[in-house]
Amino acid sequence: MFLSTNGNRHEDHWETREERELRNQTMTILQDQSTLSPELLHNIDSYWRAANYLSVGQIYLYDNPLLKRPLELSDIKHMLLGHWGTTPGQNFIYAHLNRAINQYDLDMIYVSGPGHGGPAVVANTYLEGTYSEIYPDISQDEEGLRKLFIQFSFPGGIPSHASPECPGSIHEGGELGYSLSHAFGAVFDNPELIVACVVGDGEAETGPLATAWHSNKFLNPASDGAVLPILHLNGYKIANPTVLARIEHEELDQLLRGYGWTPYFVEGNDPQAMHKAMAETLDAVIEQIHRIQSNARENGDLTRPRWPMIVLNSPKGWTGPKVVDDIPVEGTFHSHQVPLSDPATHPEHLPLIEDWLRSYRPEELFDKTGRLKPELANLAPKGDRRMGANPHANGGKLLRDLEMPNFRDYAVHVPEPGAQGIGDTHELGRFIRDVIQLNDDERNFRVFGPDETISNGLEAVFNVTDRQWDARTGVNDESLARSGRVMEMLSEHQCEGWLEGYLLTGRHGLFNCYEAFIHIVDSMFNQHAKWLKVTSELPWRKKIASLNYLLASHVWRQDHNGFTHQDPGFIDHVVNKKASVVRVYLPPDANCLLSVMDHCLRSRHYVNVVIAGKHPAPQWLTMETAEKHCAEGIGVWDWASNDDGGDPDVVMACCGDVPTLETLAAVTIMRQHLPELKIRVVNVVDLMKLQPPSEHPHGLSDDAFDALFTKDKPVIFAFHAYPWLIHRLTYRRTNHRNLHVRGYKEEGTITTPFDMTVLNDLDRFHLVMDVIDRLPQIGGRGITLKQHLANKLIEHREYICTHGQDMPEIRNWTWSSPE
Amino acid sequence: MFLSTNGNRHEDHWETREERELRNQTMTILQDQSTLSPELLHNIDSYWRAANYLSVGQIYLYDNPLLKRPLELSDIKHMLLGHWGTTPGQNFIYAHLNRAINQYDLDMIYVSGPGHGGPAVVANTYLEGTYSEIYPDISQDEEGLRKLFIQFSFPGGIPSHASPECPGSIHEGGELGYSLSHAFGAVFDNPELIVACVVGDGEAETGPLATAWHSNKFLNPASDGAVLPILHLNGYKIANPTVLARIEHEELDQLLRGYGWTPYFVEGNDPQAMHKAMAETLDAVIEQIHRIQSNARENGDLTRPRWPMIVLNSPKGWTGPKVVDDIPVEGTFHSHQVPLSDPATHPEHLPLIEDWLRSYRPEELFDKTGRLKPELANLAPKGDRRMGANPHANGGKLLRDLEMPNFRDYAVHVPEPGAQGIGDTHELGRFIRDVIQLNDDERNFRVFGPDETISNGLEAVFNVTDRQWDARTGVNDESLARSGRVMEMLSEHQCEGWLEGYLLTGRHGLFNCYEAFIHIVDSMFNQHAKWLKVTSELPWRKKIASLNYLLASHVWRQDHNGFTHQDPGFIDHVVNKKASVVRVYLPPDANCLLSVMDHCLRSRHYVNVVIAGKHPAPQWLTMETAEKHCAEGIGVWDWASNDDGGDPDVVMACCGDVPTLETLAAVTIMRQHLPELKIRVVNVVDLMKLQPPSEHPHGLSDDAFDALFTKDKPVIFAFHAYPWLIHRLTYRRTNHRNLHVRGYKEEGTITTPFDMTVLNDLDRFHLVMDVIDRLPQIGGRGITLKQHLANKLIEHREYICTHGQDMPEIRNWTWSSPE
Repeated sequence: MFLSTNGNRHEDHWETREERELRNQTMTILQDQSTLSPELLHNIDSYWRAANYLSVGQIYLYDNPLLKRPLELSDIKHMLLGHWGTTPGQNFIYAHLNRAINQYDLDMIYVSGPGHGGPAVVANTYLEGTYSEIYPDISQDEEGLRKLFIQFSFPGGIPSHASPECPGSIHEGGELGYSLSHAFGAVFDNPELIVACVVGDGEAETGPLATAWHSNKFLNPASDGAVLPILHLNGYKIANPTVLARIEHEELDQLLRGYGWTPYFVEGNDPQAMHKAMAETLDAVIEQIHRIQSNARENGDLTRPRWPMIVLNSPKGWTGPKVVDDIPVEGTFHSHQVPLSDPATHPEHLPLIEDWLRSYRPEELFDKTGRLKPELANLAPKGDRRMGANPHANGGKLLRDLEMPNFRDYAVHVPEPGAQGIGDTHELGRFIRDVIQLNDDERNFRVFGPDETISNGLEAVFNVTDRQWDARTGVNDESLARSGRVMEMLSEHQCEGWLEGYLLTGRHGLFNCYEAFIHIVDSMFNQHAKWLKVTSELPWRKKIASLNYLLASHVWRQDHNGFTHQDPGFIDHVVNKKASVVRVYLPPDANCLLSVMDHCLRSRHYVNVVIAGKHPAPQWLTMETAEKHCAEGIGVWDWASNDDGGDPDVVMACCGDVPTLETLAAVTIMRQHLPELKIRVVNVVDLMKLQPPSEHPHGLSDDAFDALFTKDKPVIFAFHAYPWLIHRLTYRRTNHRNLHVRGYKEEGTITTPFDMTVLNDLDRFHLVMDVIDRLPQIGGRGITLKQHLANKLIEHREYICTHGQDMPEIRNWTWSSPE
Repeated sequence: MFLSTNGNRHEDHWETREERELRNQTMTILQDQSTLSPELLHNIDSYWRAANYLSVGQIYLYDNPLLKRPLELSDIKHMLLGHWGTTPGQNFIYAHLNRAINQYDLDMIYVSGPGHGGPAVVANTYLEGTYSEIYPDISQDEEGLRKLFIQFSFPGGIPSHASPECPGSIHEGGELGYSLSHAFGAVFDNPELIVACVVGDGEAETGPLATAWHSNKFLNPASDGAVLPILHLNGYKIANPTVLARIEHEELDQLLRGYGWTPYFVEGNDPQAMHKAMAETLDAVIEQIHRIQSNARENGDLTRPRWPMIVLNSPKGWTGPKVVDDIPVEGTFHSHQVPLSDPATHPEHLPLIEDWLRSYRPEELFDKTGRLKPELANLAPKGDRRMGANPHANGGKLLRDLEMPNFRDYAVHVPEPGAQGIGDTHELGRFIRDVIQLNDDERNFRVFGPDETISNGLEAVFNVTDRQWDARTGVNDESLARSGRVMEMLSEHQCEGWLEGYLLTGRHGLFNCYEAFIHIVDSMFNQHAKWLKVTSELPWRKKIASLNYLLASHVWRQDHNGFTHQDPGFIDHVVNKKASVVRVYLPPDANCLLSVMDHCLRSRHYVNVVIAGKHPAPQWLTMETAEKHCAEGIGVWDWASNDDGGDPDVVMACCGDVPTLETLAAVTIMRQHLPELKIRVVNVVDLMKLQPPSEHPHGLSDDAFDALFTKDKPVIFAFHAYPWLIHRLTYRRTNHRNLHVRGYKEEGTITTPFDMTVLNDLDRFHLVMDVIDRLPQIGGRGITLKQHLANKLIEHREYICTHGQDMPEIRNWTWSSPE
């Protein structure tokens, strides 16, 4: 048992002078530490015991919550579920953070990274009083304790993680790896906030966590807050040791320093010594954080600091049973879940459970009514300083509307449909630029992306801001500064995690990404969507800003990327989640994109997926018509149709920018060759309009759907993504049997823009052939036209393989409105 | 320009003695290095220039491949696509690796981690001759050069990454982050193999790559090969610097040492000095690898070595244009793609392109026919030692069938349907155990999982093997050893990447994972499925073993995990990929699971997804019937049906273990209350049977489908996953309009097994109510029964909220066959 304050036994020659001074000052403080009286340390230990007692109680007790009588089998839950392993360590940390909050008047929240730390955060928010304030039924008395215990991992109760139901949580953590990214997202633009982020040593093996340590290169010590990582090195996962616990001490020290941190090690298992070490270390690191911040804020020194962090090396299942059935439990992976199981069939376990519970001496901690004794309750911070009550952890409370420019001011002039545009996302970039500028003072909007913001067409934002970057800079860098509204790291996980943390603490943002690679965060999206669903059902959780994805660089334009960059399936993934929280938009042109993005940035508590192109492309709608079209989400394009409001022969539906282009090109071919054909063009912006209203709140009524798509006419639907998604959304519709969908079907490589559509049968020629196939009344002219189009396809193939680009008639095609 | 062999300027006190000795020996060798004659270094430089010339040619040249005449605009491709930035550095590495292969007779393959290194690997495999052997049309002469140049990033040509079309590649790398995991997967059980793995410094920012450095804790120096990571620190991504290039040198050194590596830095931009430094360093690291290996193999010292690695710090776009249009290019992110663009509109660029190409002095490198001069061609390794020809990089060449135990020997005894089982995956575990044992000598089968192999029910494997682990061990560890067939790290990315590398080099494996968290590797699966699709179309690429997923711990059993652990959508994601490479199985019981897994382990070039439960569950089929059922993939369960081969009133379909249980329980309710109802039970094991044969090779014909599901009777389909997937697969079927699917719809938390089905309307009571709703002929008895079942649901809710477990009648329910 020793306090190894920073693990340094050789010269820190790599420290900056400023850093070394800070550290020396800190060491002096450590040695002078006299505020930690024995009484205070004793009380902290009692508080810890109380939290541990409540944690074990949650796992085991159905009744007899204060052990006022000997424990009986009927006091134990039938099914013993939960995880003890990480809990005592987190209780230890929480108790010490409480003291530090009081001592330094800290604005601090707590992120529980390790799996299954639910008992700890529930116990602590109950002890500090926030739990009972939110759930008055779980009162601070014996009956409240009984209910607190029963509800844990019990039907109708609460899960075993720091779930949304738990006050103070912004991070459920059922899926591991995102704690540190969330923590950093929370402190961006929150200069007074410190996030104490407990990182599990199991969690630390995940990829997202392994790169999240580098977040310190993106933090501005003046205008952002601080993250205090506490690596909880308890040594084991479910059934294995952890990697970081089984490398050499010096290696771990090097690794963390290599990541840019200054590690402080608190190691041991004797509670008294550990309390002292933890308290002194916490004082040291908080002082160091404050010195770094004042150095940046008062002296203007924004040199990247080596922020402090703590490595807490304590036994897994600390204070739990040492040995059970001759198997060592404390300090091994056997303490991961429920150390003493099944007293019904192992009656010898019952007294051991009782001994364990009584080892915390509940009678010293709670009064007869079951209330925490005042001298202990006093240890908790007060009011909003309690980590369970801190408003940052209920971000909707702090959320302010963005100042929004009028998106109509960015309108693309579209004198007639088909006017050539510069690339839709480039137009959007000007709008986003001004969103950034208008909210620059509020500092509550950021753009995130994996080094693709320019590639995705949003270069205009760099006219008013930079990429925030706190590592070294070079003479040829561009748009890189200590402070900026754009966060770019080549890790979709980091972008997503940072943005989630930013949103969860009450701010706004946008994630721009290549469409194919957004799948990298499929599982993170899952967890966030689940968070949104559950919090939307908790009245005390205020709504937060939506998570907005802009997916540019999409499947249909792959001139120099190819098959690996082609996957439009993220929306398939998204629409599996609750309809109440997901929205999908495919604006066909820039004015629609502007209208859609304005809507998304104003919305609350959704995930909005917006897919748009960045390449020059025809524009279809004036801003006035675009706004109306987007508000409706779907509609007939009269100007492209010739059914004159009557019955069409065929409906040409399209969704997505490239499918819209090909559809309109197909219409011009048909108008020329089959002029008597009555064609209706339907464009879909809001994909969820296609679902029945019973399935999605945006869903069209069946009558409205039938009015657009008819009850019996062929519908040729050109879709941006996998074609079967349209079938999945529309299979209950009257005219579904006549719906023929073209979309991406995993065909493609490096090739020309038009050839991508040809390879997937989505091109204008195939679309016309699809119409002919479904309208036998066209007769011989149809057969002739099909032959003509088949020849066109051969001509196309030969041309591109010779010239490396599309035929002039394709490249130069423009829509011309009918007379 | 300096050679900093290991960046150590302070004492390496953390080195082991053995390691320090190795290093000292290595330093001596370095100083004695005399094999690198000036002539050799000159020739290596020429070889590098040749590769650079071919790389620039690929990006630019449409004709005039040897610059026999002045460059004209018509010699340049219309669209200039490709990426120069990473290419010269990779050409440099490849040339030096060639020398080392020759000098030490190395069995080595090359993994190109950075994005868009295609021009380099294509150029080098062309220079060494493998390219022309595989593609005789791309011959080693002027005409071959012309074709080589044209095909790059050209319609009908090849992509810009190390795509499957490129010999020697096992890693396309369009999506970044997996190079190092692939490299380790390749060397497991390949003791003579060295994988030279170039890691991009952009790629190094991704989560998967950041944790992949830790793979060295899982490598056995005696029985596995070696990975030589070469961190290519060229400083920039698309438009940003990289993190690792902008931290302090000492920090990078610490980081890599903290990851357990011994870094050797080769830094500079002067080619001559860099050649010398790189050659000497390569000698040093190869010698060190050999010493580590002989120390392990001859001395039996399996202490984890600090393997050597190289940091190559060279300019991005090295040897390319220094400045273009007054913007610095070489050594900045501006060299990422095409440094000199669009000579048609910028005629001043044309002579610069020519100057650039001529700066490599092609006339010194190629003879008049366009063939590489013999003194340079001689530098390449010979035969299979060429990295483009190494059979490990075309793993199917080395693939041997697994020795398979007879799965029927593991049959669960099922005296009658409904016999209680111990949990299906536990039965499978015995079979996998023996697969491991039977192939122990061949060392060509491994099980991968994120610390879940026991949790997923495969504990039996630890009777015959261990988890391979080369970090420290402790007294309470279990099944942890220097050598073992199970690879467990808490990173789904690592498990997937290792397994992919293992399969791609001709071995077999199984990935076991919690169902919900397999989404973490959605995007990796995408890339592997794309690789399989493309390689299946290349005759010279031999088929490899299938990638087998066992998804246990599935959505329906969440007693102590909850909502975060509930997502059955991976199969939605999988079936978006080409039908020719994806298979999905949901065996309803253990005998079916055994039959399915036997099939999967024997199969080739697929991704097989198998979903199975681990909890005690009823068993339905004897091995004989199970084998037949699985071979058919779908079928009527006569023993549970009472339509006697005639027309049923209703079809009760089920897919998945829990849905099958609830369906059969619903059937017993109906048999009791509605005995005259003619019920047909259809069970689906092979999900793709539901699709039309035009969509998937396993698809049932429409006639066969109609014969099972009728043309007009109600079908109540209880499905394991999201219900709309069944609609997406069956929307073209005759009876689709009568298909009513129940499945998971994002409702759930911690609750009892049965309650999970209730929350999602998949339980027996809801299924019966669904039948009643669709059969009005049942009349008043139906209304009475519905009321009865609704009361049951209320009773259920009250019971679980009091007792924390399901009602006895649910827990104890068993199937009883009709008289």
